[in-house]
Amino acid sequence: MNLFSRFKKRIYLDYAAATPLHPQVRQAMQPFLTESFGNPSAIHKEGVQARQAIETARQQVATTLGIRPAEVIFTGSGTESNNLALLGLLKKLNRKEGVPYAEMEIVTTHIEHPSITKVLSVLAATGVVVRYAEVDSEGKISLPALAAVLSPKTVLFTFAYANSEVGVVQNVTRLVREVRRYEKEQGTRIYVHLDAAQAPLWLSCSMGRLGVDLLTLDAGKCQGPKGVGVLAFRGVADLLPIMYGGGQEQGIRPGTENVAAIVGAATALVLAQRDYETRTKKVAIVRDAFIANLQKVWTEAVLNGSTGENRLANNINISLPGFDTEYAVVYLDAHGIAASTKSACAGAGGGESTVVAAMTGDTKRATSTLRLSLGPDTTQADMKKVLNILLRFREKMETVSLPTT
Amino acid sequence: MNLFSRFKKRIYLDYAAATPLHPQVRQAMQPFLTESFGNPSAIHKEGVQARQAIETARQQVATTLGIRPAEVIFTGSGTESNNLALLGLLKKLNRKEGVPYAEMEIVTTHIEHPSITKVLSVLAATGVVVRYAEVDSEGKISLPALAAVLSPKTVLFTFAYANSEVGVVQNVTRLVREVRRYEKEQGTRIYVHLDAAQAPLWLSCSMGRLGVDLLTLDAGKCQGPKGVGVLAFRGVADLLPIMYGGGQEQGIRPGTENVAAIVGAATALVLAQRDYETRTKKVAIVRDAFIANLQKVWTEAVLNGSTGENRLANNINISLPGFDTEYAVVYLDAHGIAASTKSACAGAGGGESTVVAAMTGDTKRATSTLRLSLGPDTTQADMKKVLNILLRFREKMETVSLPTT
Repeated sequence: MNLFSRFKKRIYLDYAAATPLHPQVRQAMQPFLTESFGNPSAIHKEGVQARQAIETARQQVATTLGIRPAEVIFTGSGTESNNLALLGLLKKLNRKEGVPYAEMEIVTTHIEHPSITKVLSVLAATGVVVRYAEVDSEGKISLPALAAVLSPKTVLFTFAYANSEVGVVQNVTRLVREVRRYEKEQGTRIYVHLDAAQAPLWLSCSMGRLGVDLLTLDAGKCQGPKGVGVLAFRGVADLLPIMYGGGQEQGIRPGTENVAAIVGAATALVLAQRDYETRTKKVAIVRDAFIANLQKVWTEAVLNGSTGENRLANNINISLPGFDTEYAVVYLDAHGIAASTKSACAGAGGGESTVVAAMTGDTKRATSTLRLSLGPDTTQADMKKVLNILLRFREKMETVSLPTT
Repeated sequence: MNLFSRFKKRIYLDYAAATPLHPQVRQAMQPFLTESFGNPSAIHKEGVQARQAIETARQQVATTLGIRPAEVIFTGSGTESNNLALLGLLKKLNRKEGVPYAEMEIVTTHIEHPSITKVLSVLAATGVVVRYAEVDSEGKISLPALAAVLSPKTVLFTFAYANSEVGVVQNVTRLVREVRRYEKEQGTRIYVHLDAAQAPLWLSCSMGRLGVDLLTLDAGKCQGPKGVGVLAFRGVADLLPIMYGGGQEQGIRPGTENVAAIVGAATALVLAQRDYETRTKKVAIVRDAFIANLQKVWTEAVLNGSTGENRLANNINISLPGFDTEYAVVYLDAHGIAASTKSACAGAGGGESTVVAAMTGDTKRATSTLRLSLGPDTTQADMKKVLNILLRFREKMETVSLPTT
């Protein structure tokens, strides 16, 4: 079964794509994969026990995010949460408040995840105008860039807290403040949706502090199980469902609740947020040392994204212009290291990174990205090994391209 | 943790709402909840291993249903599969074939699950005409009833293989034959969608044999994990997605694949279908003995639904006119027995069963339903105990209602 047994120790650097379950998460889920299997809508003990587990999980998530339990909806994935946030909100504005789709504008950026960009394309086809705030060469949204695209028709501003490819962390509080200022000035209502899928292990997810209206989380990206997401909101659930069936999750998300996964998601979020600051400090040191060491010996390597606190502590995204980084990933893999070129949802193999292209306009950079996303326990020694293998890769590539004399 | 420890042994009779994981399913899932946690879209070994697990699972499901692997889509639930089948198909007919919604008719019945009826309401609001084939007093769709509602505009016939409340099993092959005959006569194309959520443990799910175009399965209802469904189809995927994001599942269902759940679902379906005939024979005997014994001592008890092979082997649905069966469920629960009044997704507690109301038009029957859905290992001794507790319940109720003299 175990493909890894022939390797001494794998170095897994694709935490942005998938994370191992935290042992405490696995333990918390276990009863709901064995004896406690009831349907939470049933009124017998097995059902009541399942219902209690879900409501405890909801309370845990709410406390962690600083909101009320009724403001937490469990979904089937981060992708579903993003779909529900965007489609569910606009549908509600259209059906319940009578705003025609063609009278609504959404503000976003060109560096969002496919589960945002593809939904926006669908909305654009219904007449919604999508406006893009320019990001700078590090991927940051500036206040003027945001101000330039807000309009009296803006109903939603959706963006990622931390970009899954280049790890740029937006200054959410400042951006939200700008939106609130504009709202007040215009007397309009602009919902702010934050895709925080990459955040929980590394950044504060307190919704009060962030000031956002809607927040997407994905348990599978923070040492929880796959197949479960959270859509959190503040205030009344201003959403219509995007799927239809039973009355579960306040009538917003139908289907028998996935009890084990929900319990696992809550446990993972609690654990992730409990000590994200310590984790961030520790891993950022490993990250920065690697970047410095790499740039010393590989001067053409370009860091994509920002630095310091403006960068996700576990994200390293470099371009190696002139090199085939898809092959670098294969080479690293053969030497016991799991890495990627870009987002798994955007196709983890070859092709341009649309994120880096949007940031830099530089095709050479966009087609030679290598993403190393570290875990809480990645060490300096691990990264030293990674650097050595990368240098061996360069050596091999340069030898190959030498003319045979 | 274990609420059940104070009971000698619970008798769980709510298999229609939720089932325990089969031990082999749990075992199959385990590696993907521990060391094999990769993202199937990644190109490194962890990713490849996850991808292989999913494709093996897809192959297993395909073999079990008698279709090709490319005809199997994994979703997040039976509810999502039903939503995708109906919304995805009609959207495709509208967008890709240019059929206006108001020119499409769907045929169904009045006894479907909320994840069908609620979707149909949404489609009706877009102009689609929903026509209801009458069911008889046992819940069966007759050929004349079906023929009466087919029209040249019919694009879809959707119905449940076995009803989740009253367990009536439709004669799928005969109904499909009628549809094909009509199609040929009219030169039209009618998709047949079968909601087989309740079927795998008890009925053949061979799609070739059934002749249907689309089939919904829910792992959580056949000893697999919650939070994973299958939408199977024959031929080209004539569906547009209902959520948008990454290109997973042939671009029809986005989001990081839930590897453990998918592996669990496939294992559960294989195990369920491998010996469904033996299981059905064995459990039907227990079912029929209980029904006969009950009717001997409780002459007013009315069986809802059909008998013999026209009834799901594990379903007992009786009305106890004049009795509060929600309280009966509570009473049974206190005596170690888990039962329900109706479908958990329709609210497992009080209120009328819309299914029994549609079948019988009898409010007294519809408001006094008790559903006992047996498991593969439910014994005659278990059911004897259930009968005794039910008789004690009746005795208690009759004593209560006697005037105090």
